[in-house]
Amino acid sequence: MTITQGYDLLTNTLHQRRQKLARLINFPVILWSGRSIPRNYPALTYPFRASSHFLYFAGLPLENAAIRLESGKLELFLDDAPASSTLWHGEMPKRAEIAELIGADAAFPMAELKSRSTNATTIAVQDSWTQLEQSQILARPLAPPKSPTGIDLELTKAIISLRLSHDAASLAELRQAAAVTVEAHKAGMAATRNAQIEAGVRAAMESVIISKNMTYAYPSIVTVHGEVLHSEHYHNPLQTGDLLLADVGAETSTGWAADVTRTWPVSGKFSPTQRAIYDVVLAAHDACIDQISPGVEYQDIHLLAARIMAEGLVDLGILRGNVEDLVEMDAHALFFVHGIGHLIGLDVHDMEDLGDLAGYEEGRTRSSRFGLGFLRLNRVLRPGMLVSIEPGFYQVPAILNNPENRAKYKDFVNWEKLEKFADVRGIRIEDDILVIDEGRELLTGELPTKAPEIEELVAVNT
Amino acid sequence: MTITQGYDLLTNTLHQRRQKLARLINFPVILWSGRSIPRNYPALTYPFRASSHFLYFAGLPLENAAIRLESGKLELFLDDAPASSTLWHGEMPKRAEIAELIGADAAFPMAELKSRSTNATTIAVQDSWTQLEQSQILARPLAPPKSPTGIDLELTKAIISLRLSHDAASLAELRQAAAVTVEAHKAGMAATRNAQIEAGVRAAMESVIISKNMTYAYPSIVTVHGEVLHSEHYHNPLQTGDLLLADVGAETSTGWAADVTRTWPVSGKFSPTQRAIYDVVLAAHDACIDQISPGVEYQDIHLLAARIMAEGLVDLGILRGNVEDLVEMDAHALFFVHGIGHLIGLDVHDMEDLGDLAGYEEGRTRSSRFGLGFLRLNRVLRPGMLVSIEPGFYQVPAILNNPENRAKYKDFVNWEKLEKFADVRGIRIEDDILVIDEGRELLTGELPTKAPEIEELVAVNT
Repeated sequence: MTITQGYDLLTNTLHQRRQKLARLINFPVILWSGRSIPRNYPALTYPFRASSHFLYFAGLPLENAAIRLESGKLELFLDDAPASSTLWHGEMPKRAEIAELIGADAAFPMAELKSRSTNATTIAVQDSWTQLEQSQILARPLAPPKSPTGIDLELTKAIISLRLSHDAASLAELRQAAAVTVEAHKAGMAATRNAQIEAGVRAAMESVIISKNMTYAYPSIVTVHGEVLHSEHYHNPLQTGDLLLADVGAETSTGWAADVTRTWPVSGKFSPTQRAIYDVVLAAHDACIDQISPGVEYQDIHLLAARIMAEGLVDLGILRGNVEDLVEMDAHALFFVHGIGHLIGLDVHDMEDLGDLAGYEEGRTRSSRFGLGFLRLNRVLRPGMLVSIEPGFYQVPAILNNPENRAKYKDFVNWEKLEKFADVRGIRIEDDILVIDEGRELLTGELPTKAPEIEELVAVNT
Repeated sequence: MTITQGYDLLTNTLHQRRQKLARLINFPVILWSGRSIPRNYPALTYPFRASSHFLYFAGLPLENAAIRLESGKLELFLDDAPASSTLWHGEMPKRAEIAELIGADAAFPMAELKSRSTNATTIAVQDSWTQLEQSQILARPLAPPKSPTGIDLELTKAIISLRLSHDAASLAELRQAAAVTVEAHKAGMAATRNAQIEAGVRAAMESVIISKNMTYAYPSIVTVHGEVLHSEHYHNPLQTGDLLLADVGAETSTGWAADVTRTWPVSGKFSPTQRAIYDVVLAAHDACIDQISPGVEYQDIHLLAARIMAEGLVDLGILRGNVEDLVEMDAHALFFVHGIGHLIGLDVHDMEDLGDLAGYEEGRTRSSRFGLGFLRLNRVLRPGMLVSIEPGFYQVPAILNNPENRAKYKDFVNWEKLEKFADVRGIRIEDDILVIDEGRELLTGELPTKAPEIEELVAVNT
């Protein structure tokens, strides 16, 4: 845990968050932070990541801690590190110091938690040891976070309503994450000409994030196979003619994320076919961002992207037919294979641990439509929401070579024409947009999107 | 999983390893690889790390897999990825392809494992979900890996005897890890002059590792507070007069580690006091490495380091008295607060999941002595062992200000003299040394240790 600055803001913010929570529910809440997970052996762990719900109300990534919230009061439960750990980990802040930092009304050792757990509600964390502890302390089985029941469901809904709209303190963090992410992408572009394999570009991008004492918010995607949506390989050589897709985002030390994608030509110059598709994706990207505003249905923005993608592909001769019909039959989804975006906050897909409880307005469920079912967010936008807009075009062999798709879309795809675009395996352009009263604010707007500007940034090292 | 080259070597090596195992035990062995651990939510996981014991016999970091070894035969248990995962993760190699790569005699879906588990032995992995699965499949409770019983203890001893001495294939990997680690340290030194905080140097070092498509073998230590042995903070500013201690090592894609430490002056120039202590630590480092040879007791090397450290500190006027007496009363351990080193292999502290079963010769246990109890390795060296040698000098406030220590060592420490060395908080010099028939081979010898050469590398960017 790094203790730096801005504590008054932190204390005030945490105070406000729990006051808001207290207005929504009237039973005690206990949130656990979780613990470090062994990698090779107990003393060699993965880097600790506290539960996002804990971070939201406790502000600091404390290990093996819990907080109890009731009527706007905060109690911290944390054991002071044993004296023997000083040699290995240095002097750690004491429970009392941390309690003061976060504005706790009281602080206890973890052993006291059991006696103050009556009728408390919680959300299950991700690690199984802490899940077990949650269940033991509360003396009841715990449902997975995506399907809570009873008072846990009430708590979940209350937390969602808070976390959906960012306050000033979270926005300050999200802006920092966005700024570092923009810098990382510029470094990645500039490093491409001298990199031999994907890993070389990844290194340049993550290096920026690490140098700012941040971490990556999700496993970086840096690949010449953009059609593999969550590729975690970095061994492929960078070859002239390849497009490189980089989906990389920073996370601040208190857990706030950014999520940005750019796609650029390894050579520094898009081919005509790559440029043509790139401009279609960019048109969708720009039009969708322009639509972001309070009161707008996010699903409508997804459908707008689908129409613009379909229209562009018709213009290029890849799709055939009427745009509305093509979207109706999900022909766009042959190439635009995912949703237009998602919530961003303490998680890059914010609150995805809660399944669709956060992403989908109450009473709504995922569509069974091929062209809608991957949408992660289906809500009316409201001020303070941070969302991604990330249209993409992909040639996924498993989709395009699927015999059912070949049959269904026989008359609507010009497969011969498509073959001329073989050098476009995957393109995505993604930015992070804050919904504000006046419409929208692009948090990652310092990073260019237009093809000529991208080419210039890639060529900077030549 | 990255499938690259060298498969004949891999298949042959794996064949030899299981033949050797079969000569040691005559019951079936099942080793699990483990699974990805959720970080924020189930789809956002920590980077997967397979169990080291699995990697030793399966060669590849397969997720959710198991292997069954009996009489030198290898059976692979692995489920093919569902078709729906292709969109997210690309085409994955099929079970049959992987089985061929690793030279398996048969391959089955995971569901078949239960029916082939009778009387099998195993070692518990680190992740708790897989531990549960191990226990369910074997239909018996599982002891922690550091305290196995019955046939699991026999298996553990057999695996230790194999993994203690590296074969040609593991040495090839270990050499790669060492080479990249050397490069990372050079980059860190060169980046120091332009870095503002510790994180800037960490970024330069990890960037080299990432660019080679490797990962770090353990959380990097890059700190101006070298006296905090396992510091994981990187926010401190780099100030003229500070020493920077960097303990950073690479891990290859199949899991083999390196472990190297250097300490250098932020300014590019050691102060006279820093240089004086540095040279004491270096003298211990060099003398210990010179002693490495088959048949030597590793603990004797530790005690040699203790003597050289004590002697050097007497010469500097920090300790007072006869060197043998000082070591006997653990006065060296006031400053040299840990062991001289450990095994290195698939884990940076190799096989530390097995407690001291690997590190300590059968029948030996940890000493209760302050100056010996931290030693992780207490065996007779034999060819093929890879060990670290890492003497260090630290001023740990919790140790030096401890009233008992102050009383006990009242006549043996010149506290006033020590105060003149206040600009030396922590120095460690660590290399990786292979025991060979002829004596030793320094795997990390390309990285200088002498103070003037270190100064030259740090100053390279000025």
